Amino acid sequence: MSKQRILAIEAVSRVNEEILMKGFLQRIRLHGKIAFFDLRDRSGIIQVVVTDEKVISELSSLQVQSVVEFMGKVKERGEKYINENIPTGKIEVEVLSDFNIVSKAHEMPFDMGGESLNLELPTLLDNRSLVLRHQSIFPIFKVQQAIVEGFKKTLKEEGFTEIFVPTLVPSATEGGAEVFRVDYYDYDAYLAQSPQFYKQIMVSSYERVFTIAHAYRAEPSVTTRHLSEYVSMDAEFGFINSWTDIMDMAEKTLKGIFNYVSENCKEELKSLGKEMIKIENDIPRIKLSEAHEIVFERTGFNHRNEPDLDPSEEAELCIWAEEKHGSPFVFITHYPTSKRPFYTMPDPKSPDLTLSFDLLGIKEEWFTGSQRINDYEMLTNNIKKIGGEPSNFDIYLQAFKYGMPAEGGFAIGLERLTKDILGLSNVREASLFPRDMERVDVRLKEIQQKNK
Amino acid sequence: MSKQRILAIEAVSRVNEEILMKGFLQRIRLHGKIAFFDLRDRSGIIQVVVTDEKVISELSSLQVQSVVEFMGKVKERGEKYINENIPTGKIEVEVLSDFNIVSKAHEMPFDMGGESLNLELPTLLDNRSLVLRHQSIFPIFKVQQAIVEGFKKTLKEEGFTEIFVPTLVPSATEGGAEVFRVDYYDYDAYLAQSPQFYKQIMVSSYERVFTIAHAYRAEPSVTTRHLSEYVSMDAEFGFINSWTDIMDMAEKTLKGIFNYVSENCKEELKSLGKEMIKIENDIPRIKLSEAHEIVFERTGFNHRNEPDLDPSEEAELCIWAEEKHGSPFVFITHYPTSKRPFYTMPDPKSPDLTLSFDLLGIKEEWFTGSQRINDYEMLTNNIKKIGGEPSNFDIYLQAFKYGMPAEGGFAIGLERLTKDILGLSNVREASLFPRDMERVDVRLKEIQQKNK
Repeated sequence: MSKQRILAIEAVSRVNEEILMKGFLQRIRLHGKIAFFDLRDRSGIIQVVVTDEKVISELSSLQVQSVVEFMGKVKERGEKYINENIPTGKIEVEVLSDFNIVSKAHEMPFDMGGESLNLELPTLLDNRSLVLRHQSIFPIFKVQQAIVEGFKKTLKEEGFTEIFVPTLVPSATEGGAEVFRVDYYDYDAYLAQSPQFYKQIMVSSYERVFTIAHAYRAEPSVTTRHLSEYVSMDAEFGFINSWTDIMDMAEKTLKGIFNYVSENCKEELKSLGKEMIKIENDIPRIKLSEAHEIVFERTGFNHRNEPDLDPSEEAELCIWAEEKHGSPFVFITHYPTSKRPFYTMPDPKSPDLTLSFDLLGIKEEWFTGSQRINDYEMLTNNIKKIGGEPSNFDIYLQAFKYGMPAEGGFAIGLERLTKDILGLSNVREASLFPRDMERVDVRLKEIQQKNK
Repeated sequence: MSKQRILAIEAVSRVNEEILMKGFLQRIRLHGKIAFFDLRDRSGIIQVVVTDEKVISELSSLQVQSVVEFMGKVKERGEKYINENIPTGKIEVEVLSDFNIVSKAHEMPFDMGGESLNLELPTLLDNRSLVLRHQSIFPIFKVQQAIVEGFKKTLKEEGFTEIFVPTLVPSATEGGAEVFRVDYYDYDAYLAQSPQFYKQIMVSSYERVFTIAHAYRAEPSVTTRHLSEYVSMDAEFGFINSWTDIMDMAEKTLKGIFNYVSENCKEELKSLGKEMIKIENDIPRIKLSEAHEIVFERTGFNHRNEPDLDPSEEAELCIWAEEKHGSPFVFITHYPTSKRPFYTMPDPKSPDLTLSFDLLGIKEEWFTGSQRINDYEMLTNNIKKIGGEPSNFDIYLQAFKYGMPAEGGFAIGLERLTKDILGLSNVREASLFPRDMERVDVRLKEIQQKNK
């Protein structure tokens, strides 16, 4: 078979031609003297029909996910057999000759041939490499990739430069407990909890930077929203006129991501049965204190003296934003200084509050941002206030010692955003290979006991 | 100053206009009643002239890298004052009013106002956040960013999907000694030495994938070519017809990167005084055994029974490739099985050799690739042969157990490629914040003694 391979999607324009196809058996249906299979390749899924007795016999001995190749003829389907759900739905390919099994799959541990997988999360994760081939799962990560593209495209158009920053850091600088320690030659090093310091430093070189960075949180809890390792999409920029510039940029970025995914993932969204949330209006911006008041007025729930929002308040505020402003999102601003990291800029009018925001949407917190302290002395003092040793922050403080404009930024967790956009129930479903307290591919308890 | 800020590069089209400018003082020259400074912003550097006595006085008290803003008037420079080296060289801006110091830099630890920095590497690294602002350094990372863009663009056009894979792994699977151990809750985890296993797994979902991943090597040596943490640009694809498809794709990718950098980094290359290497011809491909012969014939150096190339052979082969094939690069293929990882496909005609390659260029190894074993039993046996426990490779082996086409790929170290393309003398110069045995931002010896 010296012919050029033709992909499923390319077959659409080759009706009545004889073509070479290669791919994975996604589904097999045997009906005696006729058989069908769905062939999956990187372009999509296509229906293949088999009438040759010998090929049917070979097929009947194969497991789905086996890899095959064959020469086939592209045929238009009859009107009533058209499948509107897939881009190849108007054609099918009939196997002509040279049916060849490239790689035989072992027996499936569960049914992989259906439209959906009805499995519990632990089973999905124990069999990650297999289930990532299923059409109810692999489109998730095409959407994820588009989210990153949308993020980058929007920020590049705004003059941002992409940077690559390290994940090994010299000290547990952003908070002591939830950091992973690394045996680093004869020393200790730690896994970065965020690319925060490095993106801030780079404002002094490039003014506007973003990075797609891995971040690590040793949170000793198993929830539907936490991963031990996640991808952080971080943006930071200087020469802001007002701290509200940061919310403007965050809003523009979110809209840019939504547009990019809408335009580039039509098939994936269809296949996952999801529609993109629409952001048509400006996102309202209210102070935390106002937010408490709004909830109190609407529900009688009195949380007005608290430094943060209760989950029930977050949900109520999303409903309020939709009703009052036609927005599925709302920015909550001015969180207390005590609740934000040491580098967050205090509000000059009320230094117990910060120039910071959370974005709430669909009843949850989506991401956060703030203006940062760009004054060297103030920053150094704040490090001392939290019990830190400024010399441990040497490379970070350098950036402020030698001139830094007013600046700020925001960070978006990629897996959470994927989960929230697609309405998935657990953040683990939005990570190719999720890491948590109990699992790093394998269940840690099992592998580490076994090795002892 | 409620006016819109104008960037240096935008000023070129605003001759005779009054504009608001903001940026860093890159250089200051005081000449009594007249003073000049170079203002740096994210678009480039522009010359500013000052005649106002009060502003000259303020300027004379300022350190370079301080942040300023002012209203200025754009003027054409006289013919003989044109600076052809920078895109703003035909104009200058005269300070009119509202000169305002936004952020004062402390005293410089060394001269930052010259065209180049004549500093030793340890000084460059001790003062990383400062020197990254210098025009002899920051363009390096614009080129680096373009390298990544060129890599992605080329592969996307070839139908590859970007994936995001983890760096925390459950066991030291690719080689025992040079791996960093992590305290992972109550367990051990390790930092990935490459994204190899995950990109191979994803071939079974997307066929063609790439990832920009962090990789970690605990190599107990300090050389000009090693970093403890680096960025690996990894590609992997299935349904190859021949293992030479992998070299074809690697060659196309390298050419794509070179073209992208040439087209998009003209100013940066000029400012760094570098020209891109041209790859005009096909890259020759020779077996390791032929390579030894060629060197022996040309120089008499007899290394013909060795399983690898001596650095002197690498250098000689590059000269040979240039002379004989007009190519600055040469692929060396068929390295011995004993010298390649367990997943490398043996040559069916001669199983002691592998279907693998190194790319040599400019006297050094640039990157490597190979066809991989896609047969589940063969791969499982190879793991046992190297003393591994197959159950530790569970998620990896799953991908092969359930059907995998012939596949292979390659990996390019981003910092090394940046170093090699720009002819830098040390890989640390091609990393924003390099990590090695002795340094994680700070010198480890110093910080860790101090904390004890």
